[in-house]
Formats: sequence, C-alpha cells, structure tokens
Amino acid sequence: MKNRILLAIVVLLVIPIFLHAQQKQKTVKSDPLPSWNTGTSKKAIINFVTKTTTEGSDDFIPVADRIACFDNDGTLWSEQPMYFQLAFAIDRVKALAPQHPEWKTTQPFQALLEGDMKTMMAGGENALMQIMMVTHGGLTTEEFEKTVTDWMATATHPQTGKHYNEMIFEPMLELLNYLRANDYKTFIVSGGGVDFIRPWAEQTYGIPPYQVIGSTGKVKYDTLNGKPTLIKLPEINFIDDKEGKPVGIHQYIGKRPVFTAGNSDGDYAMLQWTSTGTGPRFGMIVHHTDSSREWVYDRKSHIGKLDKGLDDALKYNWLVVDMKADWKMIYPFEK
Amino acid sequence: MKNRILLAIVVLLVIPIFLHAQQKQKTVKSDPLPSWNTGTSKKAIINFVTKTTTEGSDDFIPVADRIACFDNDGTLWSEQPMYFQLAFAIDRVKALAPQHPEWKTTQPFQALLEGDMKTMMAGGENALMQIMMVTHGGLTTEEFEKTVTDWMATATHPQTGKHYNEMIFEPMLELLNYLRANDYKTFIVSGGGVDFIRPWAEQTYGIPPYQVIGSTGKVKYDTLNGKPTLIKLPEINFIDDKEGKPVGIHQYIGKRPVFTAGNSDGDYAMLQWTSTGTGPRFGMIVHHTDSSREWVYDRKSHIGKLDKGLDDALKYNWLVVDMKADWKMIYPFEK
Repeated sequence: MKNRILLAIVVLLVIPIFLHAQQKQKTVKSDPLPSWNTGTSKKAIINFVTKTTTEGSDDFIPVADRIACFDNDGTLWSEQPMYFQLAFAIDRVKALAPQHPEWKTTQPFQALLEGDMKTMMAGGENALMQIMMVTHGGLTTEEFEKTVTDWMATATHPQTGKHYNEMIFEPMLELLNYLRANDYKTFIVSGGGVDFIRPWAEQTYGIPPYQVIGSTGKVKYDTLNGKPTLIKLPEINFIDDKEGKPVGIHQYIGKRPVFTAGNSDGDYAMLQWTSTGTGPRFGMIVHHTDSSREWVYDRKSHIGKLDKGLDDALKYNWLVVDMKADWKMIYPFEK
Repeated sequence: MKNRILLAIVVLLVIPIFLHAQQKQKTVKSDPLPSWNTGTSKKAIINFVTKTTTEGSDDFIPVADRIACFDNDGTLWSEQPMYFQLAFAIDRVKALAPQHPEWKTTQPFQALLEGDMKTMMAGGENALMQIMMVTHGGLTTEEFEKTVTDWMATATHPQTGKHYNEMIFEPMLELLNYLRANDYKTFIVSGGGVDFIRPWAEQTYGIPPYQVIGSTGKVKYDTLNGKPTLIKLPEINFIDDKEGKPVGIHQYIGKRPVFTAGNSDGDYAMLQWTSTGTGPRFGMIVHHTDSSREWVYDRKSHIGKLDKGLDDALKYNWLVVDMKADWKMIYPFEK
C-alpha cells in the first residue's frame, strides 16, 4: 500500500515536470514564422536571431543592445491608396466641417469636402500639412486619444471594408513576437504621428506607447477650468522621416539599433544608420510586390516610394522581402 | 528496496519545490526598503505599491499603466554645490581651453578659467547656456558618450572626494528596485541633458537609455568621411523642466504616470500632472533636511528651489520625505 502511495506521488510529481519539458521542447522546435514561406528571407531572419542570441557565438549581442526598429506605414500595415492617418484626417475634416462654414470656400478644405481629391492633392505638402494641423491640434491629448480610438473602431478601408488596424501584416506580427521572445526590444519609428499610433499600437502590435517614436506636434501644459491639461497645438514639433529617423532614434532610444525594417526611401537613413554600426546588423526592406493580395509599387510611387533603397540594398546587405513570394498570408483576417 | 528508491525519488523531487517555496516566502517577507526608517513615509510607499498591485483591490493598477517617473538632480543623486552636469561642463571648458585662446578674454569663459565663480555666475542663465552649448555641441553622439563615460570614471566631487555617480541615494535605489519588482516601469524625467545621463544611468540606476527623458540639443544626421554620423549641434531642442516635464512625459512616454518623485519646484508641474489623474496616484518630494550627511536647502536655494511644492504638498497629498528623519543611509558608500 505504502508502495502504491509513493508511486502515485512520484507519478503526480513527475507528470508536470515531463509536460513542462515537452512544452519547452515544442516551443523551441515550432516554427516562429509560420506565415513566411521557406526560403532565403526566412532563413536569413532566423539565422540572424539565432546567432545573435546564442551565448558563445561570435555574433552574440547582449540583451541591452537588442534594439529593433520598425517603420509603420507599408512595413507593419498597408498604406494604400493613401496613408491611413490621412484617411483619419479627412474623416475629421468632415466631422468638424459644421463648425467651420468658411471651409466651404477655402482650399484645400473645399476640395476635400466635395470629394475632389485631385484638387486637394494638387495643393501638395502644404495642403496636407494644413489638413493635419486643423485635425490634430486644438484638443487635449486625452480627447485626441479618444478620437483616434473611436475612429479606429468604426472607420473601414474603402477597398477591403476592414478596420484599418486589421490591415496589418501577419508575417510582421510574427517577426515582432519572434524578436521579443528572443529578448529584443521592438520600437516603432514612423513618419506618422505618435499620438495617432499609440492609442492602438499596444493592442495591435504589442508595442507599448513609450516604444513608439514618430512625428510630433507641439504640446502645451495648461490649466483649463482649474484642471491641468496637455493641449495639442497646431504646430509641428518634429518630423520623424528620412534623416529625421536616426535623429529620432537617438533622441528617444539613445542607442543605435541592430535590427531595422522599413519599406521606403523614408527609411533609408535609419537603415543606413543601423547597418553601418559595428558588429552584426540586420536591415530589411518590405517590397510591395503582390497586386492581388495587397498592392504593387516601388520606384515611381507617390506613397512609399522605394528607389534608392533598392539600388543600395546589396551594398548594405539589406534583405529585400518579396511580399508575393515570401509571405503565405498578408493579413491576419485571411486565416 | 523499491520502497527506498521511491522514497529517495520523492525526497529529491520535493526538496527543490520546498526550497523554491521558502525562497518565495522569504522574498515576500523581507524588507524591500531597508534604508528607510520605519515611519509614515515608508508605510505610505509600501501601502501604495501593495494596494495597486494586489489583484482584486479597488486600487489595482494594470501592469501597462504602472508608469513611475523620477527627477534626477536632487531626487536620485545630490546636486550641491552645483548641478553635477555643470561640473562636467566646467571640466570640459578647461580641457578645451587650449583650442580656444579667445576664451582667455571672453566671458563667461575667462571667469571660469580663472576660477572666479562669482563673475561666472553673475552672467546668469545666459552665461550657463553658453557654457553648455560649447561643451555639449560639436561632437558626434558617440564621441560625446565616451567623453561623459570617461569623466564619470575619473572626476570627483570637491567635498566628498567620491565619483559623482557614487553620490546617488541608496533609499531611492531601493525604491526603484521595489517598484520594478512590482512591474512598474521606471523612467527618469530630468531637466538635465539626456546625453549626459544615459551613458551611466543603466549601470547606476538600472534604467535603460530609452527610459531616460531629459533636455536635448539638436542633432544632425550627416556623413563624415563617408561614414554616417549623428552630430550634436550647439542648439537647444527641448528643455525638460517645469511645464516642460509633463510635455516631455507625453512626447516620450505617451501615458500619464501614476507615481512621480521630485525634489524641487522644477518638478511641480509633473507632480501635479500625476496627482490630478483619476485613480490611485503617488506624488513624492525629497526634502533636503540633512546638513551633516548631505545638504539642507529648500525655499531660498538657487539650486533645487522648493517653495511652491511645499506649500501645495498637502493639497495634492504629496509625501514629503524628510531625508534626515526618514533615511538610515544616504549614499551606498556609507555601507
């Protein structure tokens, strides 16, 4: 009897240990990037992560230096037929129009409200900037956050009918998770506005607000009706694009990244800054090559133009990911 | 025999489980703030951390919202007889003087080089700004980092003879560790320069560079001799002080803190921003009251002036820590 009890105890004690070991082995052996087709791209990523996290490897990178930066538009989610933040701004102009009767006769607002995108776009960067200012300024930071959250929960993409934060790239989500599982810190370094990205980035990408770097407007600390508030001013503070990206990385992160992913020439400087550091480095360009599941564009596109990046990919040893060939799936909703 | 083997197996299996449980209990029971005297201050801190991290508590704060911000000068380390960053700048002026013969006859450099601190200080903020500009600009970010690291390893405080990063407050180190052990993210939010603090903050406080917020100079991405570099320009980008602190918190962290510690009126706005949010909040002021072990100063001090903060501490329920009465030990080297 004693024997049986002891045996039972042993079995009960050993089972969880055994299961745990199994679990662990399974985790190690399972494919960290299931949406990536087997091929050179997937191999290159796994090889880099493995060699930089294997103690004793010549290419080992200490945990404190495992900084990975990701562009957002076109790298983590789609950006066609227009940057999603612009779609947000246009919806805001429409919502605010009743309070601004003068917009009916002022460009670029008149064109926007009449749905005449050609005239609106003809105003160039200046017109876009005006739209961004009036739609992103004048609210408290908390009001703005709520506005973004509400919009993200309701607005849908004109072509897919999906919510914008459903149009994220499943293979990139896997890559973010894979890096984090290997003690990399993942940051967004976007030309888009931080206040637009932060309200949904944690839930969508697992990236907390303090790891989102992007363009910023000026903010003022003030007391409204006796209550301290931060008010978003209609003034640009910092544009986190092109040469601004390595600058933003310095100001916010304070370390040179060892892994960077982008998709356009707006990411060229940050990829270059990453790849010219000493030790192992990984630069990656998402190349939009899939006309049926996403969009096809590169050298001549107005949005996400990728020209110099393709020219110099070989020189800097950047991995050019071919969305059509390398990705089994684009969006999570395809599952 | 079989019996004995089974018994041995059981014992061997149970011992680690038992030891682990013991260890866990010990961790829970041991004093997380041994350098704090038993009293209302220590109790208030432990009470706040306990209630905000106990699941089911009305005051429970989800991990994602556990943001704690710490001023640096006078809160995490000493700031007398002058800000340590100013001591660094003065040493840099002396080191750079041979390359700047014109400084022998130009204020504030002449006074500084002649050791005439009165004349130098008479130049006010303008003079100090000039000194900061010439000593903090003109280098690449990597050169500047090395300069700070070298200085920190060699320079010593005129009164204690200790390295400056040895003059940190042991009770505050314990507080940082205690918060982190309870899944709080700890940030520095300093009026000092980020590029001056980051090189040693991780080793000294356990705070990584991307959790250090502070004043910044402008930085330019450029190519020097074919090598991409970030060059520090002698121009101010952002002053992270007074109303700038909640602004910096928004721009860098993107969340309102629930715990904030400061020591001067430069921290008033960030304490106010913290304490006027909804839900449980903790504001703490380190009051310099110990003339023998540290320094005594508050309402009339030129450095770390604390006046409005003392007036309104009760109104905002800020804990005023009495260094002399509350702290068993000031610096780690007293051990």
